[in-house]
Amino acid sequence: MKIEHIGIAVKDLGLSNELFRKLMGKPAYKEEIVEGEAVKTSFFEIGESKIELLEAMNESSAIAKYLEKNREGIHHIAFSVEDLPSEIQRLKEEGFQFINEEPKEGADNKWVVFLHPKSTNGVLVELCSERN
Amino acid sequence: MKIEHIGIAVKDLGLSNELFRKLMGKPAYKEEIVEGEAVKTSFFEIGESKIELLEAMNESSAIAKYLEKNREGIHHIAFSVEDLPSEIQRLKEEGFQFINEEPKEGADNKWVVFLHPKSTNGVLVELCSERN
Repeated sequence: MKIEHIGIAVKDLGLSNELFRKLMGKPAYKEEIVEGEAVKTSFFEIGESKIELLEAMNESSAIAKYLEKNREGIHHIAFSVEDLPSEIQRLKEEGFQFINEEPKEGADNKWVVFLHPKSTNGVLVELCSERN
Repeated sequence: MKIEHIGIAVKDLGLSNELFRKLMGKPAYKEEIVEGEAVKTSFFEIGESKIELLEAMNESSAIAKYLEKNREGIHHIAFSVEDLPSEIQRLKEEGFQFINEEPKEGADNKWVVFLHPKSTNGVLVELCSERN
Protein backbone atom coordinates (compact mmCIF):
# COMPACT_ATOMS: atom_id res chain seq x y z
CA MET A 1 0.00 0.00 0.00
CA LYS A 2 1.25 3.46 -0.90
CA ILE A 3 -0.19 6.88 -1.69
CA GLU A 4 -0.82 6.48 -5.39
CA HIS A 5 -1.84 10.09 -5.88
CA ILE A 6 -3.42 13.19 -4.41
CA GLY A 7 -6.26 14.54 -6.56
CA ILE A 8 -6.68 18.31 -6.74
CA ALA A 9 -9.81 19.93 -8.20
CA VAL A 10 -8.96 22.91 -10.43
CA LYS A 11 -10.99 25.27 -12.59
CA ASP A 12 -8.50 25.69 -15.41
CA LEU A 13 -6.09 22.85 -16.10
CA GLY A 14 -3.81 24.99 -18.26
CA LEU A 15 -3.30 27.61 -15.56
CA SER A 16 -2.89 24.99 -12.84
CA ASN A 17 -0.43 22.96 -14.91
CA GLU A 18 1.73 26.08 -15.07
CA LEU A 19 1.33 26.74 -11.33
CA PHE A 20 2.26 23.17 -10.40
CA ARG A 21 5.16 23.15 -12.86
CA LYS A 22 6.61 26.02 -10.82
CA LEU A 23 5.73 24.43 -7.48
CA MET A 24 7.06 20.95 -8.29
CA GLY A 25 10.00 22.20 -10.34
CA LYS A 26 9.01 20.03 -13.32
CA PRO A 27 6.13 19.79 -15.79
CA ALA A 28 3.22 17.35 -15.87
CA TYR A 29 4.41 14.12 -17.49
CA LYS A 30 1.06 13.42 -19.08
CA GLU A 31 -2.51 14.60 -19.62
CA GLU A 32 -5.43 12.24 -19.93
CA ILE A 33 -9.17 12.50 -20.46
CA VAL A 34 -11.36 10.17 -18.38
CA GLU A 35 -14.62 10.07 -20.35
CA GLY A 36 -16.54 8.16 -17.66
CA GLU A 37 -15.84 10.88 -15.11
CA ALA A 38 -15.96 13.78 -17.59
CA VAL A 39 -12.60 15.09 -16.41
CA LYS A 40 -9.37 16.26 -17.97
CA THR A 41 -6.44 15.26 -15.80
CA SER A 42 -2.73 15.88 -15.64
CA PHE A 43 -0.09 14.07 -13.60
CA PHE A 44 3.06 15.22 -11.83
CA GLU A 45 5.54 12.74 -10.41
CA ILE A 46 6.69 13.03 -6.81
CA GLY A 47 8.65 10.13 -5.34
CA GLU A 48 6.56 6.96 -5.55
CA SER A 49 3.37 9.08 -5.77
CA LYS A 50 1.69 11.52 -8.13
CA ILE A 51 -0.22 14.78 -8.01
CA GLU A 52 -3.32 14.55 -10.21
CA LEU A 53 -5.00 17.78 -11.30
CA LEU A 54 -8.65 17.43 -12.33
CA GLU A 55 -10.72 19.82 -14.43
CA ALA A 56 -14.40 19.16 -15.16
CA MET A 57 -15.34 18.73 -18.83
CA ASN A 58 -19.02 19.45 -18.23
CA GLU A 59 -21.51 20.29 -15.47
CA SER A 60 -22.37 16.66 -14.74
CA SER A 61 -18.80 15.89 -13.71
CA ALA A 62 -18.24 15.17 -10.00
CA ILE A 63 -15.48 17.81 -10.13
CA ALA A 64 -17.95 20.47 -11.41
CA LYS A 65 -20.33 19.58 -8.58
CA TYR A 66 -17.48 19.70 -6.08
CA LEU A 67 -16.44 23.17 -7.28
CA GLU A 68 -20.02 24.46 -6.98
CA LYS A 69 -19.76 23.94 -3.21
CA ASN A 70 -16.03 24.18 -2.55
CA ARG A 71 -13.04 26.20 -3.55
CA GLU A 72 -10.28 24.68 -5.64
CA GLY A 73 -8.13 22.39 -3.52
CA ILE A 74 -7.47 18.81 -2.49
CA HIS A 75 -10.34 16.63 -3.69
CA HIS A 76 -9.24 13.09 -2.79
CA ILE A 77 -6.36 10.85 -1.83
CA ALA A 78 -5.79 7.53 -3.57
CA PHE A 79 -4.16 4.49 -2.03
CA SER A 80 -2.91 1.77 -4.35
CA VAL A 81 -3.61 -1.75 -3.15
CA GLU A 82 -2.46 -5.04 -4.60
CA ASP A 83 -5.73 -6.94 -4.31
CA LEU A 84 -8.64 -4.53 -4.76
CA PRO A 85 -11.54 -7.01 -4.27
CA SER A 86 -10.16 -8.35 -0.97
CA GLU A 87 -9.44 -4.81 0.29
CA ILE A 88 -13.02 -3.78 -0.57
CA GLN A 89 -14.26 -6.82 1.36
CA ARG A 90 -12.03 -6.07 4.36
CA LEU A 91 -13.20 -2.45 4.54
CA LYS A 92 -16.86 -3.39 4.16
CA GLU A 93 -16.48 -5.75 7.11
CA GLU A 94 -14.89 -2.88 9.07
CA GLY A 95 -18.05 -0.82 8.41
CA PHE A 96 -16.80 1.59 5.75
CA GLN A 97 -19.29 2.86 3.18
CA PHE A 98 -18.51 3.03 -0.52
CA ILE A 99 -19.65 5.44 -3.21
CA ASN A 100 -19.10 2.61 -5.68
CA GLU A 101 -18.26 -0.92 -4.64
CA GLU A 102 -17.91 -2.09 -8.20
CA PRO A 103 -14.50 -0.99 -9.53
CA LYS A 104 -14.69 1.40 -12.47
CA GLU A 105 -12.12 2.59 -14.99
CA GLY A 106 -10.05 5.48 -13.68
CA ALA A 107 -7.23 7.52 -15.17
CA ASP A 108 -3.75 6.12 -15.56
CA ASN A 109 -4.87 2.55 -16.34
CA LYS A 110 -6.45 1.90 -12.94
CA TRP A 111 -9.49 0.20 -11.46
CA VAL A 112 -10.90 2.53 -8.83
CA VAL A 113 -13.47 2.60 -6.03
CA PHE A 114 -14.30 5.49 -3.70
CA LEU A 115 -15.14 5.33 -0.01
CA HIS A 116 -17.78 7.75 1.20
CA PRO A 117 -16.21 10.69 3.09
CA LYS A 118 -18.84 10.44 5.81
CA SER A 119 -17.28 7.16 6.89
CA THR A 120 -13.67 8.39 6.58
CA ASN A 121 -13.43 11.59 8.64
CA GLY A 122 -14.43 13.80 5.73
CA VAL A 123 -11.65 12.48 3.49
CA LEU A 124 -12.64 11.23 0.03
CA VAL A 125 -10.53 8.06 -0.26
CA GLU A 126 -9.95 6.28 -3.56
CA LEU A 127 -8.58 2.74 -3.68
CA CYS A 128 -6.99 1.69 -6.92
CA SER A 129 -5.11 -1.11 -8.58
CA GLU A 130 -3.53 -1.60 -11.99
CA ARG A 131 -5.96 -2.44 -14.82
CA ASN A 132 -4.28 -5.34 -16.58
CA MET B 1 11.27 15.34 -3.21
CA LYS B 2 8.49 13.08 -2.01
CA ILE B 3 5.14 13.37 -0.28
CA GLU B 4 6.29 13.38 3.33
CA HIS B 5 2.77 13.29 4.72
CA ILE B 6 -0.87 14.24 4.29
CA GLY B 7 -2.23 16.16 7.28
CA ILE B 8 -5.85 15.52 8.27
CA ALA B 9 -7.71 17.78 10.72
CA VAL B 10 -9.80 15.77 13.20
CA LYS B 11 -11.95 16.65 16.19
CA ASP B 12 -11.12 13.65 18.36
CA LEU B 13 -7.74 12.01 17.90
CA GLY B 14 -8.75 8.88 19.81
CA LEU B 15 -11.77 8.20 17.61
CA SER B 16 -9.87 9.02 14.42
CA ASN B 17 -6.91 6.84 15.42
CA GLU B 18 -9.34 3.94 15.64
CA LEU B 19 -10.96 4.84 12.29
CA PHE B 20 -7.61 5.09 10.51
CA ARG B 21 -6.37 1.88 12.14
CA LYS B 22 -9.26 0.14 10.39
CA LEU B 23 -8.75 2.03 7.14
CA MET B 24 -4.99 1.53 6.92
CA GLY B 25 -5.02 -1.97 8.40
CA LYS B 26 -2.47 -1.01 11.07
CA PRO B 27 -2.28 1.30 14.08
CA ALA B 28 -0.58 4.70 14.39
CA TYR B 29 3.12 4.12 15.03
CA LYS B 30 3.45 7.19 17.23
CA GLU B 31 1.69 10.14 18.82
CA GLU B 32 3.35 13.47 19.38
CA ILE B 33 2.43 16.84 20.84
CA VAL B 34 3.66 19.92 18.97
CA GLU B 35 3.53 22.66 21.60
CA GLY B 36 4.26 25.50 19.16
CA GLU B 37 1.21 24.60 17.08
CA ALA B 38 -0.96 23.47 20.00
CA VAL B 39 -1.75 20.17 18.31
CA LYS B 40 -1.78 16.50 19.24
CA THR B 41 -0.71 14.40 16.27
CA SER B 42 -0.53 10.75 15.33
CA PHE B 43 1.25 9.13 12.41
CA PHE B 44 0.43 6.17 10.18
CA GLU B 45 2.97 4.75 7.76
CA ILE B 46 2.06 4.25 4.10
CA GLY B 47 4.87 3.46 1.68
CA GLU B 48 7.46 6.23 1.78
CA SER B 49 4.82 8.64 3.17
CA LYS B 50 2.72 9.14 6.29
CA ILE B 51 -0.80 10.11 7.25
CA GLU B 52 -0.72 12.69 10.05
CA LEU B 53 -3.88 13.21 12.11
CA LEU B 54 -4.10 16.58 13.90
CA GLU B 55 -6.28 17.49 16.86
CA ALA B 56 -6.30 21.02 18.31
CA MET B 57 -5.21 21.33 21.96
CA ASN B 58 -6.83 24.76 22.42
CA GLU B 59 -8.83 27.38 20.55
CA SER B 60 -5.75 29.30 19.38
CA SER B 61 -4.50 26.33 17.38
CA ALA B 62 -4.60 26.68 13.59
CA ILE B 63 -6.46 23.36 13.54
CA ALA B 64 -9.20 24.73 15.85
CA LYS B 65 -9.57 27.76 13.57
CA TYR B 66 -9.69 25.50 10.52
CA LEU B 67 -12.45 23.37 12.06
CA GLU B 68 -14.52 26.46 12.89
CA LYS B 69 -14.88 27.07 9.14
CA ASN B 70 -14.46 23.61 7.64
CA ARG B 71 -15.45 20.04 8.25
CA GLU B 72 -12.91 17.44 9.28
CA GLY B 73 -10.79 16.42 6.32
CA ILE B 74 -7.52 16.93 4.50
CA HIS B 75 -5.79 20.00 5.93
CA HIS B 76 -2.43 20.08 4.14
CA ILE B 77 0.10 18.13 2.12
CA ALA B 78 3.75 18.14 3.01
CA PHE B 79 6.62 17.71 0.58
CA SER B 80 10.01 16.82 1.98
CA VAL B 81 12.91 18.61 0.36
CA GLU B 82 16.64 18.14 0.84
CA ASP B 83 17.64 21.79 1.00
CA LEU B 84 14.83 23.82 2.58
CA PRO B 85 16.45 27.30 2.34
CA SER B 86 17.21 26.96 -1.37
CA GLU B 87 13.72 25.60 -2.09
CA ILE B 88 12.17 28.55 -0.22
CA GLN B 89 14.31 30.88 -2.31
CA ARG B 90 13.36 29.14 -5.56
CA LEU B 91 9.64 29.33 -4.78
CA LYS B 92 9.82 32.98 -3.70
CA GLU B 93 11.42 33.79 -7.04
CA GLU B 94 8.58 31.90 -8.76
CA GLY B 95 6.12 34.22 -6.98
CA PHE B 96 4.73 31.89 -4.29
CA GLN B 97 3.61 33.42 -1.01
CA PHE B 98 4.53 31.95 2.36
CA ILE B 99 2.64 31.88 5.64
CA ASN B 100 6.04 31.65 7.34
CA GLU B 101 9.32 31.98 5.46
CA GLU B 102 11.36 31.29 8.56
CA PRO B 103 11.37 27.51 9.19
CA LYS B 104 9.78 26.52 12.50
CA GLU B 105 9.82 23.30 14.49
CA GLY B 106 7.23 20.80 13.31
CA ALA B 107 6.27 17.32 14.41
CA ASP B 108 8.47 14.33 13.67
CA ASN B 109 11.77 16.19 14.02
CA LYS B 110 11.23 18.50 11.06
CA TRP B 111 11.80 22.11 10.05
CA VAL B 112 8.65 23.31 8.33
CA VAL B 113 7.36 26.25 6.30
CA PHE B 114 3.88 26.71 4.82
CA LEU B 115 2.95 28.24 1.48
CA HIS B 116 -0.20 30.33 1.41
CA PRO B 117 -3.08 28.41 -0.22
CA LYS B 118 -4.09 31.50 -2.21
CA SER B 119 -0.90 31.09 -4.23
CA THR B 120 -1.22 27.29 -4.59
CA ASN B 121 -4.70 26.58 -6.00
CA GLY B 122 -6.28 26.40 -2.56
CA VAL B 123 -3.90 23.71 -1.34
CA LEU B 124 -2.09 24.32 1.94
CA VAL B 125 1.43 23.11 1.12
CA GLU B 126 4.04 22.41 3.78
CA LEU B 127 7.71 22.03 2.90
CA CYS B 128 9.83 20.19 5.40
CA SER B 129 13.30 18.85 6.00
CA GLU B 130 14.94 16.85 8.78
CA ARG B 131 15.88 18.82 11.90
CA ASN B 132 19.40 17.66 12.67
